[in-house]
Amino acid sequence: MPDIVETGSGGIDFENWICPMPLRDSPTIVMGHGGGGAMSGELIEHLFLPAFGAAAQAELGDSAIVTVGGVRLAFSTDSFVVKPLTFPGGSIGDLAVNGTVNDLAMAGARPLVLSTAFILEEGTALVRIAEVAAAMGTAALSAGVALVTGDTKVVDAGHGDGVFINTAGIGVLDPGVDIRPELARPGDVVLVSGEIGLHGVAVLSCREGLEFGTTVCSDTAPLHGLVAAMLATGATVHTMRDPTRGGLAASLNEIARAAGVGIALDESTIPIPAGVRDACGLLGLDPLYVANEGKLVAFVPAEDADRVLAAMRAHPLGVRAEIIGRCVAEHPGMVTAHTALGGTRVVDLPAGEQLPRIC
Amino acid sequence: MPDIVETGSGGIDFENWICPMPLRDSPTIVMGHGGGGAMSGELIEHLFLPAFGAAAQAELGDSAIVTVGGVRLAFSTDSFVVKPLTFPGGSIGDLAVNGTVNDLAMAGARPLVLSTAFILEEGTALVRIAEVAAAMGTAALSAGVALVTGDTKVVDAGHGDGVFINTAGIGVLDPGVDIRPELARPGDVVLVSGEIGLHGVAVLSCREGLEFGTTVCSDTAPLHGLVAAMLATGATVHTMRDPTRGGLAASLNEIARAAGVGIALDESTIPIPAGVRDACGLLGLDPLYVANEGKLVAFVPAEDADRVLAAMRAHPLGVRAEIIGRCVAEHPGMVTAHTALGGTRVVDLPAGEQLPRIC
Repeated sequence: MPDIVETGSGGIDFENWICPMPLRDSPTIVMGHGGGGAMSGELIEHLFLPAFGAAAQAELGDSAIVTVGGVRLAFSTDSFVVKPLTFPGGSIGDLAVNGTVNDLAMAGARPLVLSTAFILEEGTALVRIAEVAAAMGTAALSAGVALVTGDTKVVDAGHGDGVFINTAGIGVLDPGVDIRPELARPGDVVLVSGEIGLHGVAVLSCREGLEFGTTVCSDTAPLHGLVAAMLATGATVHTMRDPTRGGLAASLNEIARAAGVGIALDESTIPIPAGVRDACGLLGLDPLYVANEGKLVAFVPAEDADRVLAAMRAHPLGVRAEIIGRCVAEHPGMVTAHTALGGTRVVDLPAGEQLPRIC
Repeated sequence: MPDIVETGSGGIDFENWICPMPLRDSPTIVMGHGGGGAMSGELIEHLFLPAFGAAAQAELGDSAIVTVGGVRLAFSTDSFVVKPLTFPGGSIGDLAVNGTVNDLAMAGARPLVLSTAFILEEGTALVRIAEVAAAMGTAALSAGVALVTGDTKVVDAGHGDGVFINTAGIGVLDPGVDIRPELARPGDVVLVSGEIGLHGVAVLSCREGLEFGTTVCSDTAPLHGLVAAMLATGATVHTMRDPTRGGLAASLNEIARAAGVGIALDESTIPIPAGVRDACGLLGLDPLYVANEGKLVAFVPAEDADRVLAAMRAHPLGVRAEIIGRCVAEHPGMVTAHTALGGTRVVDLPAGEQLPRIC
């Protein structure tokens, strides 16, 4: 058969494959590999990037910038496996739209179009899928993005979990916009757009049937409007990130490592709502590690911080924005927090995820 | 909490939701909904499109054309759930790259970049994932596309099936290129680029442990080079499609319906290799319904057919190309085949898929 293209192993001997350190301690996938923390990073660095070889461009980050015909595009993808499918404040459908919109927005791009791909488990009620799809439609309209192409696969019962969704998105970058983790620099002020920990606690409370006095609702929301308001001030924004899996701690550690800077937080300034604080206290969780789906952290030069903060607070999604710390030259790659008791603690990159399948 | 955006049901009353006809007979997902045939089409038409509402642009086809800053982009996505992960001639990694490359190529686009998103099942051996990822790297290099952004999620054991992959891709359309199912017209000649049925039979034989004398290998391959060779002739190409799930029958029926034309095949001219013929005979399958992963059908005006055929045969992936039929004004929306016995049969759109989880 002359029309078969040889495909192969890229020269890797899988018969005698030795799992690279540090993955060797865990020769199989564990939940932590999907947590967005250190273990996810190791999987990318030690498995995916070497296996992809020269085909992998850049670092396979949350979004890529691709220039086509002189137009700079942002391109991003996320799969969603949250359990349960609906939770206070939203559903997997909202996350699937807002999550990819936000990955594009964090690069400073205006999101334009999304693809939608479903992996459905045999036996799932059609009404559940209609509910999820309607939430996607509403979220897409609200975010001003079009759903333009899609795919549906079905797996046999017991080999999926109701509904998994992948969205990929394309956004466009206006000339001059350059917002990347690598650009954070000592002296930058660190801002957060609002109260943290809502999404993770909302999903957890729903999943475990826990009650924490008040119902905590997910903060799932599209952030590109807030970003546009920040950029419209004319201020310089070096870096933005939406702290989803692994929470604020994971995002800030990633930025500290990418930029080779230290980050010093003032813990008392981080807005943590009472419901999140109560739930975390009860369960022994740290709110800095709990997922958000409608918040961003931004790194801006000190001289621009006040007007960016004012612009954030004037936007419905940034009303509770705060300055929570600074970028420093000391302890590069490390995040510290000045605690209410007057001490300083290290805010480590989480290994896995305290709450699996949060998005 | 002022920073929560209301997300909702788009006005649909899910408590009293009635499954729309014709889905009402099956209020849950069945394997056929993922088969790429009539049931997949019903799910899109009667569930996804109404639920997405105004957010859905066009028909959510295999790829969308998006114009950004004057540049025409093709955008496509596919999830891959093939079982088993490797089979004669390839693996899920090859399919994940070539499948999306081919969806872009069928719109006449030059594929540029892919995203890669993994849903991994807890307990899956890392070596299996490395093997799949290495196949993706090799396939991407061979197709000349870059893997630029990615995502990894993990689901608990028993809620996935080893490795599911989604790829989305961006390609660019050269000025003047306009290739769509709607453009097929009576008088067009229908060409196929080579022998059909190889991928489906390869996966099936491997899955069921069947032997058919010779090993049938998947034809997984990137088709954009073949497309470029066809377009380089200067010929007009109205429509192209890669006949994956549902085989030649599904692709041709989709085109017949989209363009409102009839398609008349001459069955004796369709290249079917002996291994596929034997396997189909043994299992009672029709080769026209078996999936391909490295073939295309093209609709070209009669006066251009010979030079397109010559260009296809001069390309390694089109050596066995043939003219297999014509587009006719009669029986619009319907595909017929003139059989070896001198009769004519209707080649229906398949309901589901004779071989589930083929890609």
